[in-house]
Order: sequence, then structure tokens, then C-alpha cells
Amino acid sequence: MTLTSVVDQALPLGNGPAVIAVDVGGTDTKAALFDEAGRMLGLSRTPTPHDGAGTALAVVTRVQELTRQFAADFPAVRPQAVGLLAPGVVDDEAGVGVLSANLHWSNVPFKQLTEDLVRLPTTFSHDVRAAGEAEFRLGAARPFQNVVVLVIGTGIAGSLFINGHAHAGGGYAGEIGHSIVAPDGPLCGCGARGCLESIASAGALVRRYTELTGIRPSGAREVLALAQSGDAAAAAIWSDALDALALSIAQLAAVLAPEAVVIGGGLAQAGDRLFVPVRERVHALLSFHRRPEILPASIGENAGLLGGALRARDLVS
Amino acid sequence: MTLTSVVDQALPLGNGPAVIAVDVGGTDTKAALFDEAGRMLGLSRTPTPHDGAGTALAVVTRVQELTRQFAADFPAVRPQAVGLLAPGVVDDEAGVGVLSANLHWSNVPFKQLTEDLVRLPTTFSHDVRAAGEAEFRLGAARPFQNVVVLVIGTGIAGSLFINGHAHAGGGYAGEIGHSIVAPDGPLCGCGARGCLESIASAGALVRRYTELTGIRPSGAREVLALAQSGDAAAAAIWSDALDALALSIAQLAAVLAPEAVVIGGGLAQAGDRLFVPVRERVHALLSFHRRPEILPASIGENAGLLGGALRARDLVS
Repeated sequence: MTLTSVVDQALPLGNGPAVIAVDVGGTDTKAALFDEAGRMLGLSRTPTPHDGAGTALAVVTRVQELTRQFAADFPAVRPQAVGLLAPGVVDDEAGVGVLSANLHWSNVPFKQLTEDLVRLPTTFSHDVRAAGEAEFRLGAARPFQNVVVLVIGTGIAGSLFINGHAHAGGGYAGEIGHSIVAPDGPLCGCGARGCLESIASAGALVRRYTELTGIRPSGAREVLALAQSGDAAAAAIWSDALDALALSIAQLAAVLAPEAVVIGGGLAQAGDRLFVPVRERVHALLSFHRRPEILPASIGENAGLLGGALRARDLVS
Repeated sequence: MTLTSVVDQALPLGNGPAVIAVDVGGTDTKAALFDEAGRMLGLSRTPTPHDGAGTALAVVTRVQELTRQFAADFPAVRPQAVGLLAPGVVDDEAGVGVLSANLHWSNVPFKQLTEDLVRLPTTFSHDVRAAGEAEFRLGAARPFQNVVVLVIGTGIAGSLFINGHAHAGGGYAGEIGHSIVAPDGPLCGCGARGCLESIASAGALVRRYTELTGIRPSGAREVLALAQSGDAAAAAIWSDALDALALSIAQLAAVLAPEAVVIGGGLAQAGDRLFVPVRERVHALLSFHRRPEILPASIGENAGLLGGALRARDLVS
């Protein structure tokens, strides 16, 4: 495990109890200590331990190691709570990891296990809902009471805020990436067909371009560049992605009528190349519906950690 | 205006203040007086006054006439409040009729107008959301905290209950009938294309069968009977309707993760012919999602009036 040097970064978190945030991803685990001024200290990124059926326990053990490391590196900072985040189906209220196919766990009581091992009050939350909460409390979604925050990267997930409150639906709500936009579309990793994620995620752009041309691009960024340089296959795939995303947003407008949809994640880096055509296509689809503002997320790649820190602070303040 | 004789009907409303409920539809206006035991009295159905730009005022005047008639017919019952319902875009919280294309109004402060004229505290609510509230508080949706109530008749609309609270979205939420399921589908009355309502409503079944065969059926019931008797056009149209409805419910499952979807309205009269294949198709579409129960509504055609009465009682109890 390597820890980067102290990141003395001004952050919008503000004053509050010192807390630890750990964001367990499918590939990497990010962690940081937040002091009482809201500074992020000791930001680290290490490979997530993959140990088959032992992965859940390895994750909790990692949290313990990180806690000890923070104590050694920043002895003046006394964390009061832990905000642990993970992907998959997460029951935030119960603090249970309901299901993660990638990380090989089901119904793991992470909150309880972490509290037993680390001896600090712990929240266990869904990574994307925590990132969404950071956008909602500190970022681009802050002006709104009814807002959807989408994170588009390798996959697509969302978090819903309804009348000012997060709606988790027992861990199952906000799975906009697995809302079906084309019942006869590509097979999705989840087992359903034509999920938004199977067409409009960064992962889908790469996969679909590879399937169509036999050439594997380095990433979604390259597919976008190819589309802009006139590559017909890339242009068609990108247009499909924009159409699917616009359709999903139009469906959200009909059902939930959010004031805004905030989009973050790797694909949002495309900026106007994403936001301008998506706005146009959403507006072309809608009639009397309330038209949501479609805005880029304003908190960067550490939104998850910030959300985890916010939730950990909520526990003890 | 004709009033039916006293309907001394046992109802699940229970004890509370006496109230008047008036449900203004595109064609007919239904009204009833509810006494302190929750009995529905003087149920009437009369044509909704259509008077172009004067329709809104004619509706409020009708409420005044109904109130006087109830006072004459049931002098012992002293209503304490009015629950007025209307279709279109309704801002329940503000008590404003935001838009009704059929009834030619926009931004009419119905709550205020009715209170001024009738001199009783008034709630002004969306007809389908009020009917949904009756299902949620008294009917099939009662066991659930997170539930969607769909009403499928000439059109399709829904009401959302999230963590035990109705979500109206400023009057724009729950428009599941105008969630697009097929962007290249039929033109919908709302101006968008491929709305659920344009494929799966009772109105759509009749219209599509007429377009396909040149024969105008008497109603959705006839299209269903034709489909069951082997008429290929009717069978295809009915299957499209089931597919579209299942897709919309699957999308709700991904986004909102309701515990149940309760379906009422004329088309729900189809019973197992609707519910059995819709459940099958929803289950075939979903993967890891939380699978909602799909249940028939349990309150009959007066769900709207009951919901209006509940909301009126809420004002004064």
C-alpha cells in the first residue's frame, strides 16, 4: 500500500468532525482523512483486494489498515467516524452490501463489521449515491430540491433527490444505467438487454466500436475524437449513445419531473460535445413536460470521498 | 343538473369532517357529499361545462351550485371543506390548474377562486393523483411505502408515493403515460412521439385497431375480445400494449424501485388477461432489479372522489 504525500487542498466540505472516507471501487480503492477544517489528507489509491469469497473481509481489513496508517501519518487528527463506500446493490440504511457481482459478495453487514474491527461509528453507502450527495450538498445539484445526478463512466448509475431527500429504494433506486431504453438492444453485463449502460456508457462506446470495426480504441475519448474526425462507425455509436441518454432523461422528466439532471463521471469530460446535443435531443423529445436543466457536475473525481465524508460526519455531528 | 338518489354506501373513508368532493373530467363531472361517518351521499354525474376560455369559471360556478344542492338535499350534513379535482397539469400544493388543453385553461388559481365563491376551505388536486392517494391510503397500495399507482383508461397517468409521501413534482411528476417507450412510435396527443399512452391506453387500442383495419371497435374491451378470438390485428395491437406497459414498469423498477405497481382504470377490468402477461413480460425484462408486485387497484371508479374527500378532510382535521 502506498500513500501519496499530504494533499493540502482547499475543499468545500467546511468545518466538522474529522472523518475517514474509503471508496472501494471494482479496480481501485481510494481513501482519505478529512480533518476538522475539511482538508483532505493522505489521499491514496490502491488496488482493491480481490480474494473471491474473502473479498468482503479483505475490504474491511483494508479499512483497518488505512485507519492505522492515517493515525501514524497524522497523529494530530482524531477521526470520529468512517464513511465506507462500495458499488453494486447497497442498502445504505441497513449498512449492508446486498450484492456485488464484481466483488463477490452478497448480504454483507459492512457497517457492523467495520465498526467491530475499526471501533469507529461507520456509514456504509453506495459509491454513486454518495458522490451524488456531494453534488447535491456541495456542488452543481445544490440549487435544486428535485434533481437526478448521473455518473457516466465505465457504467452508468444515478442518485435521486426528491423533495430534498435522497431516495435509495432499499439500494435499488437510481439504477438509471439499467433502465432499458431498447428492449432489442445489446446484452448488458447485468443480464438484461438494451440497458442505457449498454449503449451510452464510456465502456459501451469502446465495446461497440471494437465490435463494429475490429479495432479496439484506447478509450471513450478516442471514440469521440474519431466521431468528430468523420469516422462513420464512431459517429453512429456516439449518436446512439446521445439518443439513448436523451431518451432516458426524457423518461425521467415524465416520471419524476426533476428540476435538473446533473451529469458527472468520465464521459462528462466531453463537455459541450456531450451536453449540447443531449440538451437538443431531450428538448426535441418532450412536449408539455417540465424540462430539466442538464448540467455538468462541479465536483471532480473525489465526489465519492467527499460524499462518504459528509455521511460519516452526519453520524457524529 | 340531475342528482341521483341518496347512495347509502358503506365506504372505507371512516369518520371525519363532512366534505364535498368534485371530480371534473374532460367529459363528465362527478360530485358527492361525504358525511361524518364517511358515507357517500348524493353522488351525481353531469356533463362538464365546456365554455372555451370561460370553462374554468363555469367549473367553479358548478361547484357553487353543487354545494347549494347538497345543502338543500342533505340539510343535516354540514360540509367543512371541498376537494376539487381536475385533469391536466395541476400544481396541488399551490392549488393551481397549470394547464388543461381539453378544458382550455392555464394557470387558474382554482383553490382561491373556489374558496372565494363557496366560502369553504378547498383543496385543488390532480384527479389521478387523488385517485392514487385513495389507493395508497385505503386500497391496494396501502401495504407499501414506495408504490406507483397507474390509471389506464382513455389515457394513462400515474401517482408516485416515495417513502410514504406523494411526489407531485410541481404537477409534472407521475406522467408515466407520457414517458416515451418508442421514440419512433405513434404520434401522441401531447405532441411527443411513442408515449406509453399512445400504445397502451384503452384509447390507443381503439385508435390503432381502427387505423390498422378500417373498422372502428366499440371500445378497448372489443379489441381485447377480438385478440382472444384470434384476430391477428387485435392480437398484435394488444401484444404491443403489453410490451409497452411492461417496458415502462421495468423502467420504473430501475429508476424508482417501487415495492409495487398498482393498476386501475378501465383497462384493469381486463383482469388476468392484463396482469398475467404484464407480470411475465416485466420479469423477463429485469435482471438484478427489485421486482415490483403488480397488483390490481381495489377501489372502484369513485377512487378520485374518495381521494378528493381525503384531501378535503386533511385540510380541516
